[in-house]
Amino acid sequence: MKKSLGPRIAAYPTPVWVIGSYDSQGKPNAMTAAWGGVCCSEPPCIQVSVRPSRHTYTSVLARKAFTVSIPDAVHAAEADYFGIASGQNTDKFARTGLTPVRSEIVDAPYVGEFPLVIECRLLHSMELGAHAIFVGEIMGTLADEEALTDGKLDMAKLSPLLYSVDQRSYFGVGQVVGKAYSLGLKYHKQD
Amino acid sequence: MKKSLGPRIAAYPTPVWVIGSYDSQGKPNAMTAAWGGVCCSEPPCIQVSVRPSRHTYTSVLARKAFTVSIPDAVHAAEADYFGIASGQNTDKFARTGLTPVRSEIVDAPYVGEFPLVIECRLLHSMELGAHAIFVGEIMGTLADEEALTDGKLDMAKLSPLLYSVDQRSYFGVGQVVGKAYSLGLKYHKQD
Repeated sequence: MKKSLGPRIAAYPTPVWVIGSYDSQGKPNAMTAAWGGVCCSEPPCIQVSVRPSRHTYTSVLARKAFTVSIPDAVHAAEADYFGIASGQNTDKFARTGLTPVRSEIVDAPYVGEFPLVIECRLLHSMELGAHAIFVGEIMGTLADEEALTDGKLDMAKLSPLLYSVDQRSYFGVGQVVGKAYSLGLKYHKQD
Repeated sequence: MKKSLGPRIAAYPTPVWVIGSYDSQGKPNAMTAAWGGVCCSEPPCIQVSVRPSRHTYTSVLARKAFTVSIPDAVHAAEADYFGIASGQNTDKFARTGLTPVRSEIVDAPYVGEFPLVIECRLLHSMELGAHAIFVGEIMGTLADEEALTDGKLDMAKLSPLLYSVDQRSYFGVGQVVGKAYSLGLKYHKQD
């Protein structure tokens, strides 16, 4: 018997993504978001959701571009800070000592020290209420060599963070559970 | 120096969510998706992305409703199977022995054995290319008592799966890294 928790956000896991953008003064800014996900394979797209009151909201709409820098667990404190402070009155890069790097293909900065970066041009925006969805077409992906195994992104090496809404806590990645398109074949082959 | 991986899906982590819907015959179906995320706090909304060729696509548009059942690691094989087979010619619930339960508040079924369920009415749909985004307003959430600690969802007890695109593998959740809105305060208090 399941317990009803009502109409609320209770989605697991959610990612910890840092949205990079330039404001009207050209100042690089970074904002942490757990509301986001992949939304299309071709063209490759992701969505991130941002409150209209955020500095990032105005910047992304004006520049039609953003990046998503994905922190590893080592940078959890910096990622958390990027979600606490506002770029309106703070230079968050200066505060944390992290490096804003200008993307070569979209008009937005990314966090140089984070192992994985997604470079997007703004494809669509949609106002939903408290948040607006920004759908970004992925124009490029950048990864640290240390996050790759045989040229492929390696979950354990990337060590991305997960966010638990109810616990207001970050978690790391655990063990491999199994291969996709493989574990389920035992049900598929009963014909 | 970062290595360019080009314009491709390389977002980490992505969730493993099972979309529940009724087809035109009233048959319950379940489809696994890793493309999805939260997209608004108020009204609470999530998005899932589905290829127009999928049986689920037609069902969700017709019924204007879907559920997201979140599997724990114990049910990784069933979740994987839900992503392999098509509901067009298979009763995936019958195959796996899992139970389709009719939601009491939206016109869609959920997976009875999975610990967390999100019940949605279709709010928006947007065609992007290979996938369409379905934005669902969360009308209700159901959780197993065993997934709660002091009435709150507990990441370790829920034990949701993560998907690694490059490795085509599922991973579990790891250890707590730290508290949100807390780890980053050391940078915030330098004023």
